[in-house]
Amino acid sequence: MTDSPIHEKLAVSVRRLIDATIRTEVSSEVVAAATSEIDSVTGQLGAALMPGSFGERAVANGANPVSGNVVVGARNPSAPPLAIQHESDGSVWTEFTLGAAYEGPPGFVHGGVIAMILDHVLGAPAHKPGRPAYTGTLTVRYHRATPLQRPLRAEARIQTVEGVKNFTVGTISDVDGTTVSAEGVFIHRR
Amino acid sequence: MTDSPIHEKLAVSVRRLIDATIRTEVSSEVVAAATSEIDSVTGQLGAALMPGSFGERAVANGANPVSGNVVVGARNPSAPPLAIQHESDGSVWTEFTLGAAYEGPPGFVHGGVIAMILDHVLGAPAHKPGRPAYTGTLTVRYHRATPLQRPLRAEARIQTVEGVKNFTVGTISDVDGTTVSAEGVFIHRR
Repeated sequence: MTDSPIHEKLAVSVRRLIDATIRTEVSSEVVAAATSEIDSVTGQLGAALMPGSFGERAVANGANPVSGNVVVGARNPSAPPLAIQHESDGSVWTEFTLGAAYEGPPGFVHGGVIAMILDHVLGAPAHKPGRPAYTGTLTVRYHRATPLQRPLRAEARIQTVEGVKNFTVGTISDVDGTTVSAEGVFIHRR
Repeated sequence: MTDSPIHEKLAVSVRRLIDATIRTEVSSEVVAAATSEIDSVTGQLGAALMPGSFGERAVANGANPVSGNVVVGARNPSAPPLAIQHESDGSVWTEFTLGAAYEGPPGFVHGGVIAMILDHVLGAPAHKPGRPAYTGTLTVRYHRATPLQRPLRAEARIQTVEGVKNFTVGTISDVDGTTVSAEGVFIHRR
């Protein structure tokens, strides 16, 4: 078993640990003890590890191919993870909130995290079953800072298709409107 | 103390745990026990938490303002973290290797992670002490996939300056050359 609810629960717990690691104000003694305990847990989990990364293995054995993905992977503690919703018109959207682990300017989402999410979300409408699309070009326009700890929404749709190239557009918005917009070219390999 | 070597050691340990969480193949019983132990550690660290995120607090008390940063923050377990080197000619570079936690296509770095790193690295030459530069526009061109678990280098330099706008360019490369190039406009707030 390389993917199951039990692994997702583990990732949820490690996400909480990441947040506490950044924000903790307990004594140095407690921090040092926590570090030792984590090393012990890592040793137990590390007694058997798949080589390299999750994706390589998942493709081989038919498990969920994106569980290790840094944006949508349910067992990757560094992933928010986003749940991408596909509409019947081909557009996609996702709603999420980002915490301390995604900080750039104090109190705001790192502009690079915004670019990362938009790369994934703009690519999503271009993916076809068994026929992934790879980013060719991504252009991101920052209108204003995107807040941490506030409900956010990302959405994207295909604007035009030319051969193997999908031209998509999308945005990230908070309750007050669009904070960042983007356009991208996503390419199916021949 | 909100920042110290002991917190960085904790973050190093949590980074190893993130990798093991993604790649572990131990039994469900061991995964479940690990989850419980992590929840216990998180409870201990969470006994005192700074509100919100690290940046807000750090600016207030003069601690390292970027320790929580998702790209360069030494106490953010989700950060690689990158160490940005500044050259006397104003250019910047950093060398790093990305593991399973940064996966997109199987065996390769997520295109969004590449965009995240380039956003940060292209902004770095534009930052002045006490005068941060914010991303206006970022355009990323993907020439080929960037491998996981291989030495990578990111570099950037200012091409031109027009008033408060810095136009910067940069690349990510592996041993075989450039994988992704980018250009960005980074703006000093008046």
